[in-house]
Amino acid sequence: MRRFENPTVAVVGATGAVGRTMQAILAERDYPVGGLRLLASERSAGAVVETPWGSVKIEDLATADPTGIDVALFSAGGGRSREFAPRFVDAGATIVDNSSAFRMDPEVPLVVADVNDEAIETHRGIVANPNCTTMALMMAAGPLHEVAGIDRMVASSYQATGGSGQQGMETLERQIEWFRGKREAMQHGGWEDPGGDLYQRPIAYNVLPMAGAITDEGYTDEEWKLVYETRKILEAPAIKVEPTCVRVPTMVGHGIAATMFFDRPMPLEEALEILADAPGTELWPDSHVPTPLDSAGIDDVLVGRVRETVGDRGGISLWVVGDNLRKGAALNAVQLAELLLER
Amino acid sequence: MRRFENPTVAVVGATGAVGRTMQAILAERDYPVGGLRLLASERSAGAVVETPWGSVKIEDLATADPTGIDVALFSAGGGRSREFAPRFVDAGATIVDNSSAFRMDPEVPLVVADVNDEAIETHRGIVANPNCTTMALMMAAGPLHEVAGIDRMVASSYQATGGSGQQGMETLERQIEWFRGKREAMQHGGWEDPGGDLYQRPIAYNVLPMAGAITDEGYTDEEWKLVYETRKILEAPAIKVEPTCVRVPTMVGHGIAATMFFDRPMPLEEALEILADAPGTELWPDSHVPTPLDSAGIDDVLVGRVRETVGDRGGISLWVVGDNLRKGAALNAVQLAELLLER
Repeated sequence: MRRFENPTVAVVGATGAVGRTMQAILAERDYPVGGLRLLASERSAGAVVETPWGSVKIEDLATADPTGIDVALFSAGGGRSREFAPRFVDAGATIVDNSSAFRMDPEVPLVVADVNDEAIETHRGIVANPNCTTMALMMAAGPLHEVAGIDRMVASSYQATGGSGQQGMETLERQIEWFRGKREAMQHGGWEDPGGDLYQRPIAYNVLPMAGAITDEGYTDEEWKLVYETRKILEAPAIKVEPTCVRVPTMVGHGIAATMFFDRPMPLEEALEILADAPGTELWPDSHVPTPLDSAGIDDVLVGRVRETVGDRGGISLWVVGDNLRKGAALNAVQLAELLLER
Repeated sequence: MRRFENPTVAVVGATGAVGRTMQAILAERDYPVGGLRLLASERSAGAVVETPWGSVKIEDLATADPTGIDVALFSAGGGRSREFAPRFVDAGATIVDNSSAFRMDPEVPLVVADVNDEAIETHRGIVANPNCTTMALMMAAGPLHEVAGIDRMVASSYQATGGSGQQGMETLERQIEWFRGKREAMQHGGWEDPGGDLYQRPIAYNVLPMAGAITDEGYTDEEWKLVYETRKILEAPAIKVEPTCVRVPTMVGHGIAATMFFDRPMPLEEALEILADAPGTELWPDSHVPTPLDSAGIDDVLVGRVRETVGDRGGISLWVVGDNLRKGAALNAVQLAELLLER
């Protein structure tokens, strides 16, 4: 594997929420950026951005020459990743791709930093960043799996509108205003639909039990990611996952309530010890249970409500919540870029 | 069992959200009220309320004489039920109690109308109305259980602030105002706690993965209700339930994401047929998935996202959502009062 000293780093999708957070996290973590290139769509090209590494003019992804880029962090959607990532690889770059384009490609490692770091060794130019909901769950499930092997799991998500980007949060804000002073209608019916084409149903003062779009067997793409990405990350193709992905009216922070059973009974005390030691996580007490608002803007994934199962004994139920823009996307991408330096 | 022709009906807790909804539903359903008595705490006593059955002066529960009451709908909290329900029974009344006081009493039937109506026959003066979250879930789980027997189930709730009464909805409204214009802090951290002592953590723009208060083994009272009430209602003491109860920033309508496995594989088509025929429910398509806002103010419990499990095969995952004040409380109580007439 090639080593970089002071790599030239490109952020592709530099003007989006994740792309901007990637730049902030590169600076926060003192990533040894030798040079920064910012790429986006034609619309943003030409604008000049002040960065900790000087003024950078945004380049048009469609026409930019990738020569000289060592590490490229892609977060510009699956279509652009599929089109441009191979070209960047051909030009000598290593890609950390935040889209779902390559996640299930058997030749592309899918890596949660602090969970399956070693998988990155096998990359051939592209490393995939997992789905944000799966990522948060893996931070708790990974360490437990390593010790006792997860056999089956049911996971229900509480996903923030920020997971749909800036537009998701704006939709929530707009709809909150729409319903202002209309409690009677919300309580007794007769409300009018606030409209908008981002979500199928209203999201303010509501929950939408269908995050993503239905693909096969009545499951959404978000739900299938929980199934397949979990198996790939944990290198356990037989893990059984029953997912339900639900959008909730929060800004940032994807929560997951999960119940998991292992290849052997998992005593509560053991689970608590494992989770207390899990890197990149904080175990919070029931007296101050972790919520999406607590997770916003921080790097650690928060874990709480850890308890032994009460129906079938020997399993563990728990709650995890993580900032979907940070560990769920930009932070993990930068952590993978760090692993590319170290290894 | 005694029959009533035109019973004298008492609503105990007449000024609360559930008590007021009980009166509205008695009228909507043309319950043959021979006379109405309204009881509440000393604070409300003396006020005169206009009802479809004339002006009624609110009586002080502590000093009222229950003589002459045929059916009493109690929704004034567990403490008052424990204190006063037995006195009302001694005076000849039959009680439908919405509190948790008697739900697990082996001599008190726990009845979801349209699910286990026949259980009401065994009452000795008190019939218990189930917990609102359990009630919504039972409307879908009951008919499936009757056909194939539920073996195990994982249920995660999305419970409205209205489940905490008027104060819950007011807390949500106040906190929504508190966070108005503070998206930056919600996104990146640095928000200030809006305070309030109803919920342990903020509920606006947040979810609180701990509805109720922790009792045994790290589970909340709300979660234990899902475990024990499910078993009692379905008369299946071996059903294994893994519950997680989460409060979400909605006004009305408790949602539950559930995954259930049966004594035999349950084909999706069979589940859909059973649920399409289930009384008191509506099966909604994925193209217009049912949400809490849809459930507000209506009697039916809404069912959606019905799909076969994909980890372990042969199970069913689904979503249910019901108005916690109506089917979850007042409607079922009135339905039980109707059963008391019929049987």
